[in-house]
Amino acid sequence: MKNSHNMYLENIKVMDCTIRDGGLMNKWQFSDDFVRGVYNACVEAGIDYMEIGYLSSEKAFDRNEMGPWKFCHAKDLERIVGKNETKLKLSAMADIGRIELTDIPPASESVLDMIRVACYAHQVDKAIELAHHCMDKGYETTINLMAVSTVGEVELNEALADIAKSRVPVFYAVDSFGSMYNDTVSHLVNKYKNALPGKEIGIHAHNNMQLAMANTITAIQEGCTMLDATLMGLGRGAGNCPIEILIAFLKNPKYRLLPLLQAIQDHIHPMQNSIDWGYHIPYLITGALNQHPRSGMAWMDSDQKNDFVTFMRSMHDNELLE
Amino acid sequence: MKNSHNMYLENIKVMDCTIRDGGLMNKWQFSDDFVRGVYNACVEAGIDYMEIGYLSSEKAFDRNEMGPWKFCHAKDLERIVGKNETKLKLSAMADIGRIELTDIPPASESVLDMIRVACYAHQVDKAIELAHHCMDKGYETTINLMAVSTVGEVELNEALADIAKSRVPVFYAVDSFGSMYNDTVSHLVNKYKNALPGKEIGIHAHNNMQLAMANTITAIQEGCTMLDATLMGLGRGAGNCPIEILIAFLKNPKYRLLPLLQAIQDHIHPMQNSIDWGYHIPYLITGALNQHPRSGMAWMDSDQKNDFVTFMRSMHDNELLE
Repeated sequence: MKNSHNMYLENIKVMDCTIRDGGLMNKWQFSDDFVRGVYNACVEAGIDYMEIGYLSSEKAFDRNEMGPWKFCHAKDLERIVGKNETKLKLSAMADIGRIELTDIPPASESVLDMIRVACYAHQVDKAIELAHHCMDKGYETTINLMAVSTVGEVELNEALADIAKSRVPVFYAVDSFGSMYNDTVSHLVNKYKNALPGKEIGIHAHNNMQLAMANTITAIQEGCTMLDATLMGLGRGAGNCPIEILIAFLKNPKYRLLPLLQAIQDHIHPMQNSIDWGYHIPYLITGALNQHPRSGMAWMDSDQKNDFVTFMRSMHDNELLE
Repeated sequence: MKNSHNMYLENIKVMDCTIRDGGLMNKWQFSDDFVRGVYNACVEAGIDYMEIGYLSSEKAFDRNEMGPWKFCHAKDLERIVGKNETKLKLSAMADIGRIELTDIPPASESVLDMIRVACYAHQVDKAIELAHHCMDKGYETTINLMAVSTVGEVELNEALADIAKSRVPVFYAVDSFGSMYNDTVSHLVNKYKNALPGKEIGIHAHNNMQLAMANTITAIQEGCTMLDATLMGLGRGAGNCPIEILIAFLKNPKYRLLPLLQAIQDHIHPMQNSIDWGYHIPYLITGALNQHPRSGMAWMDSDQKNDFVTFMRSMHDNELLE
């Protein structure tokens, strides 16, 4: 088995995104107890990074609508993690255009260790600029190119050429729509590796076709070293790679499974009563059609959520109906 | 993408096992309306085979405990499918020692087209004998070697040598415990192909680590042509490869997705309120430990079902606790 090849696995780093990606399902309205439970589990399990939310400008979103982890203000962070005197590194994600550079404190004054910049292909120049700014302030950075399954080859090659010239050390293969099969993941990771010598590649998978864990394994086998995952897969729509399956797979003595199961038992599993993340037929349909999950999420929020046939028939350009 | 390579996919046959494998969760106590819904969906969707239950001797099980699909008596079959004047072929599974040869009618007098023989490695001789008997009575047959993840290499090689000499045309790679990763599936399918020239290989996956769909894709890519799947993955413990995801993946014009979604909507999804199949932490733990799911199923039937930590701690020889 390839997961016994230490050459693959020595450099693996696992990033828990439970709060950041899960918050897309509840507008980051998590209780402090919930966030602290995830944080403590990550610390005790030996997880490498925890992404605790988004960095956003106060002007970009309404505090009455969005919970604290949409902003990651210092006082909220410190209420949960204190000075974070642990081995766990903390990350926040920044979307292009949603954050003012002047709002980002120097890393020396923040409990955050990393800022990950999420962008679409046409925003890669701005993403590099923001990431360089964060690096100059002392943060680790990555760039996460979203929705790559809809990007043409020429545009992607141009984006990669720009990334290659940047100082940003990590670039992510992101399956935003959960539409990728293993061969697509292999192709993409290899394309990124070849275009970006000397950089690390990360993987962020979604579970629309129940392939998030498998695609993460494939990415590891192709040389990815930064792995995104969440407790029980909590994340937008069909959710992400479940961190508990990933940790069981890695069999790396630096990780412990039990604290993750405790957090699932105490915090995540009970949330299934109020939030419909995970494998559901509407998310399968958007994933298989390589479409944004928003129509599936709207359907799952409606009174018709279990009328899968009507949802299927409502989708435009639906090759699955042919 | 490999699924655009018609050379792989021309010979693909999909086997719906919803009633047979799902019955392991409710002792085959399905209503006629439910079984008819699955049957009609398979017919309308263009599925190749439907496995409607087990062939068992009346002496082997109690009719008061087990529903009709544990026995597949002619009168029960015909109440659902009439003479089955459709393109859908019907299958039943036979376990070694649970059926008398004299109880099996000639295929010409049965609506069944196929009898699949399930066995453990030490029963391969008996399985070949039973399969030959069924072939002589006019049935298509397969042999499905269960729990291969616990079989030593020498014993497996001997079993394969016996299968190779038999007339049985199809041999199944079965991941009974849901413990296999993609490289194990690749290895196993290639081992079977090399040992069994001229025979077809099938795949039957379980979803303990959310890998059933991915492992089925891997098996296809390695040359498997008979694919087991069930509606919404309904099956023992964590369940099987979901047939709706598989059909969306195959993009073969002979299949239609919508009738499967209708059956899920009408019959399968509502059953989630009463049966806990699918991804649950106890099934992850048995799968990751390469153990039979029975301890996970017993836990899920208990009042402690959501106490994952205690279940984890209760498992013997638990390398995941190290």
